[in-house]
Amino acid sequence: MSKLFYKSSRKAGLAPGSLIHIGEERTEKPKITIIDYDKDNYQERVVENVEECFPFKDYPTVSWINIDGIHQVDIVEKLGKHFGLHPLVMEDIVHTTQRPKMEDYDSYIYVVLKMLWFNDGDTDVKAEQVSIILGDNFVLSFQELEGDTFNFVRERIRNSKGRIRQMGADYLAYALIDSIIDNYFIIIERFGEIIEDLEEELVENPEPGTLQNIHNLKKEMIYLRKSVWPLREVISGLDRSESDLIKETTFVFLKDIYDHTIQVADAIETYRDILSGILDVYLSSVSNKMNEVMKTLTIIATIFIPLTFLAGMYGMNFSYMPELGWKWGYPTVWIINILIFISMYLYFRRKNWL
Amino acid sequence: MSKLFYKSSRKAGLAPGSLIHIGEERTEKPKITIIDYDKDNYQERVVENVEECFPFKDYPTVSWINIDGIHQVDIVEKLGKHFGLHPLVMEDIVHTTQRPKMEDYDSYIYVVLKMLWFNDGDTDVKAEQVSIILGDNFVLSFQELEGDTFNFVRERIRNSKGRIRQMGADYLAYALIDSIIDNYFIIIERFGEIIEDLEEELVENPEPGTLQNIHNLKKEMIYLRKSVWPLREVISGLDRSESDLIKETTFVFLKDIYDHTIQVADAIETYRDILSGILDVYLSSVSNKMNEVMKTLTIIATIFIPLTFLAGMYGMNFSYMPELGWKWGYPTVWIINILIFISMYLYFRRKNWL
Amino acid sequence: MSKLFYKSSRKAGLAPGSLIHIGEERTEKPKITIIDYDKDNYQERVVENVEECFPFKDYPTVSWINIDGIHQVDIVEKLGKHFGLHPLVMEDIVHTTQRPKMEDYDSYIYVVLKMLWFNDGDTDVKAEQVSIILGDNFVLSFQELEGDTFNFVRERIRNSKGRIRQMGADYLAYALIDSIIDNYFIIIERFGEIIEDLEEELVENPEPGTLQNIHNLKKEMIYLRKSVWPLREVISGLDRSESDLIKETTFVFLKDIYDHTIQVADAIETYRDILSGILDVYLSSVSNKMNEVMKTLTIIATIFIPLTFLAGMYGMNFSYMPELGWKWGYPTVWIINILIFISMYLYFRRKNWL
Amino acid sequence: MSKLFYKSSRKAGLAPGSLIHIGEERTEKPKITIIDYDKDNYQERVVENVEECFPFKDYPTVSWINIDGIHQVDIVEKLGKHFGLHPLVMEDIVHTTQRPKMEDYDSYIYVVLKMLWFNDGDTDVKAEQVSIILGDNFVLSFQELEGDTFNFVRERIRNSKGRIRQMGADYLAYALIDSIIDNYFIIIERFGEIIEDLEEELVENPEPGTLQNIHNLKKEMIYLRKSVWPLREVISGLDRSESDLIKETTFVFLKDIYDHTIQVADAIETYRDILSGILDVYLSSVSNKMNEVMKTLTIIATIFIPLTFLAGMYGMNFSYMPELGWKWGYPTVWIINILIFISMYLYFRRKNWL
Amino acid sequence: MSKLFYKSSRKAGLAPGSLIHIGEERTEKPKITIIDYDKDNYQERVVENVEECFPFKDYPTVSWINIDGIHQVDIVEKLGKHFGLHPLVMEDIVHTTQRPKMEDYDSYIYVVLKMLWFNDGDTDVKAEQVSIILGDNFVLSFQELEGDTFNFVRERIRNSKGRIRQMGADYLAYALIDSIIDNYFIIIERFGEIIEDLEEELVENPEPGTLQNIHNLKKEMIYLRKSVWPLREVISGLDRSESDLIKETTFVFLKDIYDHTIQVADAIETYRDILSGILDVYLSSVSNKMNEVMKTLTIIATIFIPLTFLAGMYGMNFSYMPELGWKWGYPTVWIINILIFISMYLYFRRKNWL
Repeated sequence: MSKLFYKSSRKAGLAPGSLIHIGEERTEKPKITIIDYDKDNYQERVVENVEECFPFKDYPTVSWINIDGIHQVDIVEKLGKHFGLHPLVMEDIVHTTQRPKMEDYDSYIYVVLKMLWFNDGDTDVKAEQVSIILGDNFVLSFQELEGDTFNFVRERIRNSKGRIRQMGADYLAYALIDSIIDNYFIIIERFGEIIEDLEEELVENPEPGTLQNIHNLKKEMIYLRKSVWPLREVISGLDRSESDLIKETTFVFLKDIYDHTIQVADAIETYRDILSGILDVYLSSVSNKMNEVMKTLTIIATIFIPLTFLAGMYGMNFSYMPELGWKWGYPTVWIINILIFISMYLYFRRKNWL
Repeated sequence: MSKLFYKSSRKAGLAPGSLIHIGEERTEKPKITIIDYDKDNYQERVVENVEECFPFKDYPTVSWINIDGIHQVDIVEKLGKHFGLHPLVMEDIVHTTQRPKMEDYDSYIYVVLKMLWFNDGDTDVKAEQVSIILGDNFVLSFQELEGDTFNFVRERIRNSKGRIRQMGADYLAYALIDSIIDNYFIIIERFGEIIEDLEEELVENPEPGTLQNIHNLKKEMIYLRKSVWPLREVISGLDRSESDLIKETTFVFLKDIYDHTIQVADAIETYRDILSGILDVYLSSVSNKMNEVMKTLTIIATIFIPLTFLAGMYGMNFSYMPELGWKWGYPTVWIINILIFISMYLYFRRKNWL
Repeated sequence: MSKLFYKSSRKAGLAPGSLIHIGEERTEKPKITIIDYDKDNYQERVVENVEECFPFKDYPTVSWINIDGIHQVDIVEKLGKHFGLHPLVMEDIVHTTQRPKMEDYDSYIYVVLKMLWFNDGDTDVKAEQVSIILGDNFVLSFQELEGDTFNFVRERIRNSKGRIRQMGADYLAYALIDSIIDNYFIIIERFGEIIEDLEEELVENPEPGTLQNIHNLKKEMIYLRKSVWPLREVISGLDRSESDLIKETTFVFLKDIYDHTIQVADAIETYRDILSGILDVYLSSVSNKMNEVMKTLTIIATIFIPLTFLAGMYGMNFSYMPELGWKWGYPTVWIINILIFISMYLYFRRKNWL
Repeated sequence: MSKLFYKSSRKAGLAPGSLIHIGEERTEKPKITIIDYDKDNYQERVVENVEECFPFKDYPTVSWINIDGIHQVDIVEKLGKHFGLHPLVMEDIVHTTQRPKMEDYDSYIYVVLKMLWFNDGDTDVKAEQVSIILGDNFVLSFQELEGDTFNFVRERIRNSKGRIRQMGADYLAYALIDSIIDNYFIIIERFGEIIEDLEEELVENPEPGTLQNIHNLKKEMIYLRKSVWPLREVISGLDRSESDLIKETTFVFLKDIYDHTIQVADAIETYRDILSGILDVYLSSVSNKMNEVMKTLTIIATIFIPLTFLAGMYGMNFSYMPELGWKWGYPTVWIINILIFISMYLYFRRKNWL
Repeated sequence: MSKLFYKSSRKAGLAPGSLIHIGEERTEKPKITIIDYDKDNYQERVVENVEECFPFKDYPTVSWINIDGIHQVDIVEKLGKHFGLHPLVMEDIVHTTQRPKMEDYDSYIYVVLKMLWFNDGDTDVKAEQVSIILGDNFVLSFQELEGDTFNFVRERIRNSKGRIRQMGADYLAYALIDSIIDNYFIIIERFGEIIEDLEEELVENPEPGTLQNIHNLKKEMIYLRKSVWPLREVISGLDRSESDLIKETTFVFLKDIYDHTIQVADAIETYRDILSGILDVYLSSVSNKMNEVMKTLTIIATIFIPLTFLAGMYGMNFSYMPELGWKWGYPTVWIINILIFISMYLYFRRKNWL
């Protein structure tokens, strides 16, 4: 659960707009990459100092400045100040507990969302906060870690093929968001497989640990939902936005990722429903097992208890017990026992317990 | 569950608008059929090359081009390009995990929905994605498989009787959607029968497998719901559309299929409610059975345990046990046993356990 | 459940607007009644041929044509054609699986709803579809069966007292709908009594069949809900309608039946909630009973098992068992037994099991 | 439950607007009280005949006519006719199963709500329907019974202190509604105490009757909810009303009772949630008790059953059983028994059952 | 629960606007603090008499009057009258059961919310009602107790650094609300830890008390929800407000706390979901434990009951029992016993009970 809520309390009492990094502690030096392109030209640079990014603000070409690592708040602060970001936006960028949201500040649009991935062999989704600033002809993107989700976008820009080089900064921002949402499908499919495995296991061999698994999956679904649900508003917010920053031609693409978001949200709801069903099946299979145990006990006990009683009777030491002297007394007891046994057996048979 | 989510992840990282078929792998050659008609004339052709369809774009008559099989994306691509479809529309046509939706692109309307059917003797709904493009005087329809749902429509066109030959492309699109939704009623009725059978089985002879059946039916309902629920928005989207492509006279028919959609959605909700009730009945009948088992055990054990104890007492070997020498000792024990038995019996009777 | 969904599938593949009767098969000849009235005059006729109704279309007086029996579709068709009904309306009239709805076709308003009743001594609601067409100065009503619900309305017209003779066709349509909704209250009250009985039974003597009853009542509630819920939209649709067919003075009456609809819908929701509560009580009382059974077993067994063990010990045949020779050995065993018995008794007492 | 639904069916088939009293049968003579006041003058009268109220209709002062007892419908009818009430309003006044509602008839506003109270020592809420008609300068109020809720309002008018004498009929209507809603808080608090007691009882000594209590409380909550929930719409209806009957200065007071209504509705929801939680705790404590019973049985049985078996073995009468002749045979059996006992004890200890 | 609802019933029957303190009884003298500042000047005073605050009403600088303690209603009344507060506002300030709300009275805005905190070592949230009045250039704040939440704000004002000294009264009101909401995050995190501990305990060692803990946490969540949920409307009410009292520049800050409110509300919903899951896990682990107990009993009993029966048979005292004379009779019984034991063991093994 700790991934659900970081220690935001560290901030209580500070003035709004105070830049404090809240999130996992990291020590790597943030990596700053600049990609600048238009239809014909293209350059890509990794810079050491954030100041080297400043001139790109006013280039007529599309400039994409990507920061991998937001734990050094001064980098965010310098960049933010130069690009005219509101202090609250800078605060949100470094505060990694944001809900996905979209805010329109006239001269730029701020979008924050969650990038999700699985560690190999793990059923536990990891999340990283990604902030995207869409300006007039620049895009700033902030990630917590260096990742490879954006590589596909970089590749498309480098190859100068496809639509991306012909279009503006708004399409670039769309492409970044799209690459993040595409990733969600991988998560969704992986969970689909995990749930399918769980269902098979349930039928074949339910065990106490299964419930813990169901509970953990439910928690993952709650977490996914928290990341994906607000996305719908983010994207439809962009779609309905009257900002000049988003051009007419980009809207149809926004509609497309809106559909994707709905699909992901839908899948999460479906999984939640299925998990509820699995829980019912599990609980009922536990009940059925108990039933079987009880039946076994009951059958054995109710057959042998009367027999044992009878044996006990003829084990008594009364001086005057005429049966004990009979020649056929002993075999008679055995015959009675066998009759009791058979009638009990038939009774249980009729009751459908055998 | 695998039918719920295909491997859309194959697409992650590709540029939007990339045409990749996502769905079940098939190898048949897609079949292209053209039906062209107006009030007086009618022709129907199966063509080999998609290029043969191109001239129909500008015919004043209504042209319906139906493609059975979308796994050869180049056919979709050529046709789409000629008819001026947006790349994202073409992408959605071949990507069979779409949610039902309707999109208005001024010069054409794109509708995607799910055709559902049962395989014989199976309780498992199969689904196929159907895309319909309504243009000015043409309709393009894309199916995954060659199916017979549209045959009724074809028949009506051929017979030149009925309303369909007098009306335009919008009515044809309506007729196709209507034939798909009519099919849903068959699914719904089949499930109605399955659920009725399940209820009877439950009363007569509940068994562990019943729960698995309930769970599977619930999953089918989730799946149906995913296919049908968004349909309501699709149809009401068409109904409220301000597009010139849909004529006044067609609206009343759209309203009619909207009603049908609501009926189907309603039925699914009803089934979900009934399945929840069935689950409760099942779980409780398991409890009741356990109760009966426990009662049997308790009755036998509590009657015989005291008797056995008594027999055990007189089986002891103490030298000085006066009762053992009594002449009526042994019959007395039997009488006591019978008294205990009768009083226990009466006790259980009063408790209503017998 | 069969009442929930008739075989609508018979219609799949037919052209929209095809007149096919879907509902219970009947053979009676439909009965056609005409009531024509204004403030001063009144006539009532039962006619043989539907054609006799035709002239009433243009009478300035209010004409009410009531058809009992819709299984002869040609009667509906002839009447419908003469009165200018849309083919889809005629289709819906004879297709008895409609959801309650209201449609405004400018020159007439089409309302379809469900008439509900109980057969005597039955807990099973029966339903019949009633279609009402409100035209300029006529009302057409279609029932599946000859019933007596509308008799009260007829009586009021005949008596020429009350508001009804002074007002137009819209008020007549309102009066018909009102008489149907008034009937719902009878259903609701009957269910109220059934549920109250069930609750008493539950407290006094819960048994396995109780659950089946709860489940059946829940299903009846689902069915009632399906019939009543959409009514709210129907009535508020009439209320908000801008049609000239409904006069100002009638709106306040529509508001009144809207309130009634809400009351019925409310009652159904309340019953659903109460039935859920009853289910909880039932399940818990089953648990409590099991608990009592287990306690009985445990008390008897845990008291006698140690005693039997002790008796068994002194039943052993070892040559050297000093206690066996003691004079007070046997009484001592009895005393020990009694002590064990008493201490066990006190233990269970303290545990609150007795 | 009978309080939830009276026999409204008595009305089925009557013309709308028929005045029939539906509610508890009463025989007392209704009491008619008139209070007439303005800033400076004040008179209060109890009258015998309803006709004595008629002149107050046109007084410029504020006239409040209160009727305690609505079972004599002719009083309501005469008053209603003189004051110009719509027949449906009169019908609703005497029909005590109304949902709280507010209706604006231009020349007057009709508000109907439920007055709730507890009988002493009872956990069962009683309800009474109160109808309030706000006219230009008069207020009519109808109660089922003579009650004391309105006394506080009367007192404030008599004392001529406070705001009430300076303001108009709308403020008087507000004050009446306010006094009814204030009463709800008393109900809410009483339930708060009952629920708190139930929770304590649950922890200390859960017993089968507890569930019945929870169920009854839940039903009371359903009933309260039915009375309070629609109130929100009533009050916000008044608040948004564009009627001239409500003056600007009164709106802030309406907003205040709207807040109160929300608080009451909130409390009811909270209680429902808490009762659900209590049910879970109760059911689980039943389970835990069963667990404890089973553990006791299991411990005793599994310890003594093997011991008894061993004793049984040496109670056999075989001629050749060497152990029987051993000198230490008997003590050895005791030692074995004690070892079995100890090891079982340790086993249960480790399993945490002791 | 008592914290959920104070005795508001004391007010029933009083005129609206009557000032009666409802809340915990206190005796401390209320503390009145005045902070007055603009960009350049700053003064802070603790005053004895409320009258000393009066002149600040018309100062052009920002004046913040904070009252710690509202149980002396005359202070609130005098201050309220001087600052022109509506009687209902004053009533709400001293009535500590308000739901968070925001009311716009043209010349001032009234905001009421709940300050929450934990006592050390306690899992029980305490709440205090805080009322804030935002006027033209003054802010009045009323707390139940002297607290330290506002100290951070005071500190920022004193230090004259940061935005607060440059901005107006609306920013001050925002800062106060922000400091209260920041506190919620501390509560939320603390609950996060408690729930995490509970989950671990559940896996390692579930015990009956756990359920009580879950129930209490659920009740805390209900309580938190009641405090936080309406906050969303409060803040968005401020945000959408058209009042001149809130300046353009402050809106972006309001949006920020709106986001925080959503985050807190989200967290509460998440906790509720997780607690439901924990409850399921707990209940199921109780079932599993019972299962294990039953299995142990069944295994021991079903193995030894047949053995004991056999021993009993050969303990009978019949004169003619040939086996008793056999030399190998006794060892044969042992061998049979061991065979029964082994086959039972294998049977349970196969059933997966061991």
